Amino acid sequence: MNKLAIIPLKKIEIRDDFWDRYIGLVRKVIIPYQWDILNDRLEGIETSHCIQNFKIAAQREKGEFYGVVFQDSDLAKWLEAVAFSLAASPDQELEDRVDEVIELIGEAQEEDGYLNTYFSIKEPGKRFQNLMEGHELYCAGHFMEAAVAYYHATGKDKLIHIMKGFADLICREFSAENNSKGYPGHQEVEIGLYKLYEVTGEVRYLEQAKMFLDRRGEKPNYFLEEKKKPDFKQIFDEFKNYDITYSQSHLPIREQKTAEGHAVRAGYMYSAMADIAAAYDDTELLEACETLWNNMVDKRMYITGSVGSSGILERFTTDYDLPNNSNYSETCASIALALFGRRMAQITKNAKYYDVVEKALYNTVLAGIAMDGRSFFYVNPLEVWPDNCIPRTSKEHVKPVRQSWFGVACCPPNIARTLASLGEYIYFAEKDAIWINLFISSKVKTLMNGQEIELEMNTKFPYDGKIVLHTRSKDPAVGKLYIRIPEYVKDYSIEVDGIVREDKLFNNGYYELNTELMNKTITLSFPMEPRIVRANPLVKEDVGKVAVMKGPLVFCMEEVDNESNLPAYFLDTNAELKEQYDESLLGGTSMIRCKGKKIRSRGWETESLYTEKRPEFEEKELTLIPYPYWGNRKTGEMLVWIKEIL
Amino acid sequence: MNKLAIIPLKKIEIRDDFWDRYIGLVRKVIIPYQWDILNDRLEGIETSHCIQNFKIAAQREKGEFYGVVFQDSDLAKWLEAVAFSLAASPDQELEDRVDEVIELIGEAQEEDGYLNTYFSIKEPGKRFQNLMEGHELYCAGHFMEAAVAYYHATGKDKLIHIMKGFADLICREFSAENNSKGYPGHQEVEIGLYKLYEVTGEVRYLEQAKMFLDRRGEKPNYFLEEKKKPDFKQIFDEFKNYDITYSQSHLPIREQKTAEGHAVRAGYMYSAMADIAAAYDDTELLEACETLWNNMVDKRMYITGSVGSSGILERFTTDYDLPNNSNYSETCASIALALFGRRMAQITKNAKYYDVVEKALYNTVLAGIAMDGRSFFYVNPLEVWPDNCIPRTSKEHVKPVRQSWFGVACCPPNIARTLASLGEYIYFAEKDAIWINLFISSKVKTLMNGQEIELEMNTKFPYDGKIVLHTRSKDPAVGKLYIRIPEYVKDYSIEVDGIVREDKLFNNGYYELNTELMNKTITLSFPMEPRIVRANPLVKEDVGKVAVMKGPLVFCMEEVDNESNLPAYFLDTNAELKEQYDESLLGGTSMIRCKGKKIRSRGWETESLYTEKRPEFEEKELTLIPYPYWGNRKTGEMLVWIKEIL
Repeated sequence: MNKLAIIPLKKIEIRDDFWDRYIGLVRKVIIPYQWDILNDRLEGIETSHCIQNFKIAAQREKGEFYGVVFQDSDLAKWLEAVAFSLAASPDQELEDRVDEVIELIGEAQEEDGYLNTYFSIKEPGKRFQNLMEGHELYCAGHFMEAAVAYYHATGKDKLIHIMKGFADLICREFSAENNSKGYPGHQEVEIGLYKLYEVTGEVRYLEQAKMFLDRRGEKPNYFLEEKKKPDFKQIFDEFKNYDITYSQSHLPIREQKTAEGHAVRAGYMYSAMADIAAAYDDTELLEACETLWNNMVDKRMYITGSVGSSGILERFTTDYDLPNNSNYSETCASIALALFGRRMAQITKNAKYYDVVEKALYNTVLAGIAMDGRSFFYVNPLEVWPDNCIPRTSKEHVKPVRQSWFGVACCPPNIARTLASLGEYIYFAEKDAIWINLFISSKVKTLMNGQEIELEMNTKFPYDGKIVLHTRSKDPAVGKLYIRIPEYVKDYSIEVDGIVREDKLFNNGYYELNTELMNKTITLSFPMEPRIVRANPLVKEDVGKVAVMKGPLVFCMEEVDNESNLPAYFLDTNAELKEQYDESLLGGTSMIRCKGKKIRSRGWETESLYTEKRPEFEEKELTLIPYPYWGNRKTGEMLVWIKEIL
Repeated sequence: MNKLAIIPLKKIEIRDDFWDRYIGLVRKVIIPYQWDILNDRLEGIETSHCIQNFKIAAQREKGEFYGVVFQDSDLAKWLEAVAFSLAASPDQELEDRVDEVIELIGEAQEEDGYLNTYFSIKEPGKRFQNLMEGHELYCAGHFMEAAVAYYHATGKDKLIHIMKGFADLICREFSAENNSKGYPGHQEVEIGLYKLYEVTGEVRYLEQAKMFLDRRGEKPNYFLEEKKKPDFKQIFDEFKNYDITYSQSHLPIREQKTAEGHAVRAGYMYSAMADIAAAYDDTELLEACETLWNNMVDKRMYITGSVGSSGILERFTTDYDLPNNSNYSETCASIALALFGRRMAQITKNAKYYDVVEKALYNTVLAGIAMDGRSFFYVNPLEVWPDNCIPRTSKEHVKPVRQSWFGVACCPPNIARTLASLGEYIYFAEKDAIWINLFISSKVKTLMNGQEIELEMNTKFPYDGKIVLHTRSKDPAVGKLYIRIPEYVKDYSIEVDGIVREDKLFNNGYYELNTELMNKTITLSFPMEPRIVRANPLVKEDVGKVAVMKGPLVFCMEEVDNESNLPAYFLDTNAELKEQYDESLLGGTSMIRCKGKKIRSRGWETESLYTEKRPEFEEKELTLIPYPYWGNRKTGEMLVWIKEIL
């Protein structure tokens, strides 16, 4: 399939009011902070031991392995984030440090190519015996992705060679010739192998990725068979009664119609399925991707672009089951959703995927990180009441305050690599066209029909719906431009050098501009008013409620701006939503105010818990801020879905 | 303190339309069914091994212990239920079987009095080393209760002697002289010791019960110290990170102001606190009971009389935290609440406690058992959507269908003993008075001022608010009668032989009748209309919603009588609630119908999950049945708290 290409990060320069603060954090705060954590240089933070594990495996130092079985992946994700960051902002000192770490990784690799400090140090001889829990292939995938990103950023291929060594071992170990029926318990290596194939051209990596996907769901179930072996060693208590749906191994991938199991595993698998569908021109597999996407997005996704409703085991549950105060909605699952959606847009050239990618990036991914870059949410509820987030009880997983670092550190480095690679989401390219997916002020240089062109985008999106593009090229008629028109845009105009275009060539949600394209100022304008959104009434938790959005941004009430007991508020959806941009609020953002009422609790002090007393209302103004910024001020209640005055 | 007395079950005969079906089940179904289970005679039911464990401990048979550490308590609860049942309905064959079992128990007892098959068989030498998890004292308490009940029913004291042997060992082992600082990880022995004291007059049992209570909360925490010992052996994974609040050992009992931790442990402890407060005339302790009661009932109790909001570890959470679809609300916790409330009413002579006891008995305790007596709920949600009760996810603990038997079989035998002892809840006696707490058709014989009197109560409560009492005695002016006037009764009349009493002597919610009492027909009448009830608006989950009640009965919507998606219904609280009694419905009960509307889901099929579309309503009739009967027909959604048209 003729897939749209990602433009190398080196060619993209982002200068955007909304995003810069976060992207800047990656370079200035998160990368050095995570480096310190990987090296156990910070006090009061859970021990990582990650670099130490590599030093022990490399026999530079003596000691025991410490950490979880997938501890290595922290380093891999850090490396990938650094690579993305170096592509946009070269930094020799940082690059030197990476080269040293890659040296260490090479030393930690076993002679036959195997690379995993947990098994090398702690369980030598046990490699690949517990694919259900072992995460060796998961870690391998992340290192492959890091190797490719670092190669793109610096042209250095040492890590590529290391990972080729491991990939070759994986291809041998899990080959058909070797009678292997195995596949990873946590999908990710499929993505890594595909990227390694793209950069090396080695078809065996592509084939291995496809094989891993195709084996999934074969009967008898691989993981259940593995557990029966006499020397099987359980790693996690919670997997004693393993549910094969958890790892999407309950059915062959082409027969899966609903998004099931662990949401991150699912999202990574769907992304790999899209890669393989495109590579093999496999329309059946692409249809499977579309079916899964539609189920996820039309029936199992929060308005904030998050997935995985279950507070236990980070899982999908059932259609329309979207509890707001007990969901998991892992930050990493939204990242996986964005990765999947981006691939689907590349393949189908349909903008609808970006309506979801944009929601995930603007809401859940950003909510995952504090505005100072030092604390993180794994769990992204849509309603929080700090008092009932009590250890060792039902809401333990919901945190009213971002956490500085976790024992299982998947989300922070995943957010870092996503922010550092944001450029990859903004534009796509094909031979004769550029596609604009997101409205983020930036400059991109690329080739169109062999001609170098430069595109500059300036916008105050998401606060404003005016997007100004400047194109520069020697050849004024060099190619085409496709601009995504989001689903929330009901009306828009396009001007070229001040002249309104009457024609509206529309391709699956992209506006097509195919004449007089270069050395122009192209302006896309659409109204960006706050709006009231409702959920399908089958979403039991949201029936009778509304959310306030502006573009892709979801807004929420916080206790700090309102009174406590947020669920007692009712919003008047016939009244105006008043937006005010405030430079001093949370580094500059909008507040939305609207009229409503609240059920009075005063007078209840002397009543028993249940009485026949009728509710009394008081008029109230409701104040909302963007969801990604919640929890950056005073700890308190938060609420997205507000009762509607009906 | 001058406590009101419980009238022996032998003196009470219940003949009540509402309750007979359940009480009959105990004798006809539950007792034989549970006996078969205890003896592993049923197929397709989780193995109990309970009797087998006793046979092994008694060295009648060889084998290994099987089951949980508190498996013995199943037999104790069965015995107590049988004893209560025999008191009301003698049955020689059943009594013979009990005598055989008591023989077996005696043989299973160790020479020094110790009785626990888990430790005797599986961990000899480890007794009392793990009070946090070991449950030896818990099982002991239940056997003591059973011994006392069987003695009251039959006059036979063999089990009393067995349990005195164990109680004496406990008093030695946990004495101050022995420098013991220990107390049970699951409260219950305090109740058992107190009952054993009542029947034997041995003050050391009373003192030991008090000592156990007073030690709780001492620093350093006993359980945490116990865990530090080198030979400590953890029994339950989930207690690896033990939270002392779980077992109410975070503070001395007199300093506890809020209901915390495991709800059943809490309820049993509060009951024992009330026993000890009365026995020692300890007003400080009684105040502590009142404080805990008020916190529980005014801030942490469901309208169905259930407690313990957390779906994890069956715990209390925080004030006003009462989720409806993810709560635990264990049946046993409502039983514990009823036990506590009954004691508080006995001590304080205040009817308010019975407003709660009645709610717990009529709603949650009955909901715990199917109308055929063969399946049970542990968890009692107020809102159920079967589709999202998925194994290994957040709502796993919520069951849309009652379960036939559980590995941990605490609730079924607990329901059985509660139903079999219902008589103990109906009446209290003191030297010169009878107190009527519940309106259940029955006959009671007792002494008043040394004079034998008989009282007969006839009523169709809770369907009707007319209660007719017939009194018979030789002496017409023998004493007083106190009749509870429930909090939901706004207006009532009392007639004696057809003449309305103008005087209304009211004592803490009891109407006092102190003249011309005997050989009369006394009629209490009050309107029993369905009513709309609302929760304190601080209950976030219920704000803007209503429940429908009639007397103590909570009503609920079931999918079988309505359309699916119950949360989309809105109730018109200005319209009439139409009640209709139907002989053929669920063995005879009322249905309540009322007007309302529902947000239409039709038309959403082609919409995405979130749109700006306004809700469309359709007029609908809502149909409700009593909460205790839910889940006895077709499996489907259930809902107590319904949105109100505001």
